[in-house]
Amino acid sequence: MDIEKPSNKTAGKPIQCRAAIATAPGEPLVIDEVIVDPPNSHEVRVRIICTSLCHSDVTFWKMKDFPAVFPRILGHEAIGVVESVGENVDGVVEGDVVIPHFLADCTECVGCRSKKGNLCSAFPFKISPWMPRDQTSRFKDLRGETIHHFVSVSSFSEYTVLDIAHVVKVDPTVPPNRACLLSCGVSTGVGAAWRTANVEVGSTVVIFGLGSIGLAIIIDMTDGGADYCFECVGLASLVQEAYACCRKGWGKTIVLGVDQPGSQLSLSSFEVLHSGKILMGSLFGGLKAKSDIPILLKRYMDKELELDKFVTHEMKFEEINSAFDLLIKGKCLRCVIWMGE
Amino acid sequence: MDIEKPSNKTAGKPIQCRAAIATAPGEPLVIDEVIVDPPNSHEVRVRIICTSLCHSDVTFWKMKDFPAVFPRILGHEAIGVVESVGENVDGVVEGDVVIPHFLADCTECVGCRSKKGNLCSAFPFKISPWMPRDQTSRFKDLRGETIHHFVSVSSFSEYTVLDIAHVVKVDPTVPPNRACLLSCGVSTGVGAAWRTANVEVGSTVVIFGLGSIGLAIIIDMTDGGADYCFECVGLASLVQEAYACCRKGWGKTIVLGVDQPGSQLSLSSFEVLHSGKILMGSLFGGLKAKSDIPILLKRYMDKELELDKFVTHEMKFEEINSAFDLLIKGKCLRCVIWMGE
Repeated sequence: MDIEKPSNKTAGKPIQCRAAIATAPGEPLVIDEVIVDPPNSHEVRVRIICTSLCHSDVTFWKMKDFPAVFPRILGHEAIGVVESVGENVDGVVEGDVVIPHFLADCTECVGCRSKKGNLCSAFPFKISPWMPRDQTSRFKDLRGETIHHFVSVSSFSEYTVLDIAHVVKVDPTVPPNRACLLSCGVSTGVGAAWRTANVEVGSTVVIFGLGSIGLAIIIDMTDGGADYCFECVGLASLVQEAYACCRKGWGKTIVLGVDQPGSQLSLSSFEVLHSGKILMGSLFGGLKAKSDIPILLKRYMDKELELDKFVTHEMKFEEINSAFDLLIKGKCLRCVIWMGE
Repeated sequence: MDIEKPSNKTAGKPIQCRAAIATAPGEPLVIDEVIVDPPNSHEVRVRIICTSLCHSDVTFWKMKDFPAVFPRILGHEAIGVVESVGENVDGVVEGDVVIPHFLADCTECVGCRSKKGNLCSAFPFKISPWMPRDQTSRFKDLRGETIHHFVSVSSFSEYTVLDIAHVVKVDPTVPPNRACLLSCGVSTGVGAAWRTANVEVGSTVVIFGLGSIGLAIIIDMTDGGADYCFECVGLASLVQEAYACCRKGWGKTIVLGVDQPGSQLSLSSFEVLHSGKILMGSLFGGLKAKSDIPILLKRYMDKELELDKFVTHEMKFEEINSAFDLLIKGKCLRCVIWMGE
């Protein structure tokens, strides 16, 4: 096999580089050399500049059973530079700055073409260990053993391979240690208020997940219930509480948090009919990645969207396990990890 | 007590007339003489011209426990003529043709003023045995015993008393045996598609309640799920089936059917988050009675809304128990009952 260290002439060849590998549930990530295959048709290979740590990385790092698999390269908030492109890739070339996104946006299927939602019908969201088109991996270790992907991103590696449906080209002048946050967390939050709920000025909004607030106090504060309740934790009981706190007549409960597999949500049939309330889920805040991430980036550059305050820590790739510690202990909002030499 | 047979000079005095009284769960209604008190402040007394029978009448006629109460005058789809008005009644005078509506529309509270919903905050919907403002009854039998109201309408009586929040003045030239259907059933159905769901031309729609259709067949027929599912029966299991049949990304399940008290609806937390589907209830189809009933009546007069085909039977007041039989046996859509002499 013809394996090369990254250079100007790596296109079409496997690349050997470093990745932080999750080897077992809850065990510290191991930074080791891996082989990253060249991109197949409809794929691009990307050198990661920055990545940041999200709670979902921690969830699947801790998880013992399927859809958790090991060894795996986690990470899904990032920004990088296209190293090479496979066949049938339009609109992205070597050297472009891109942001990966875990929720596909193929731009062609009935789901992506519709203005009513953001779920791709061609590549439905799943916690898959493979590339979305051919269900194989582009990662292996130096012994040739397969390493698994994570939500079509796997950004805890100096190089990764992304399907063209999971990557958006962005303005190359954006600060990478801010732009990477739009890969997932900040976009989900901003999108939920903007695209999913379409919150109007003057609405009352309750966020479940900042801390616990008594049901009675909330309803009293909002004079009849909140217009919008966002559940950001992923607990059926909290969704039920949010639904109870919504204003009768039109209150919307928007579920953003990822609950445990198998968890059931229970609502009173009478309440559903008689309250006129609305319950809905929102993946990636209802955003269409390819069109909406550039809009949010422009808002940041125009100083309308305050990304800076989300970044509480920045560190080197070698310190990635410290980022896990900080997030688990609630001591950070976002840790940005710089991949560069 | 000064009780008179109806005449031109009944205003301010009790009226003696006939009503069909539900005396015990599931027992045939008894047509008997009752006393109908004059309207209090914010109330009107109405001579019923036509009434029609709805499934909810049957539900509360059969029901053994609270909120079922006996003796009670059921009926909530109707049209009539104002016989007299109480104090503080604006916009309706003696001789006006009016349609009662079970869902209040006070036009002044935060709920009625909002364009986002149709639930009155001043007089929230409940299956009450009383008038909404003072929690007393305007009906008694000839021995002076109280007879209970039903959802602020009680139209199975030659005369009834209605709160001004539960009555809308309509064009007096409308055919009463069609217009009465807009009191509840037809408005709920039309409103659910028009106001609540805002169904676009070309959408796929599945109605649960016309008959049972297999889940797999439906999703196949709609190529990925229906854009809109309407549950018209009132069964938690059917709501869950409707939710499952909705298209991922934006499918809306609209609950219209009245379930048994205490019934619980169970949904997978994962499905709620990842499907992007919307669940909502709709009372009276999301219509604001005072503004929307006249619009629907005009559509009928303009031959855009086909009310005629809903009326499968017409009968005299004395035959009201036959209407119950027909509806229970599924042999009619709507039976119109003429109250006149």
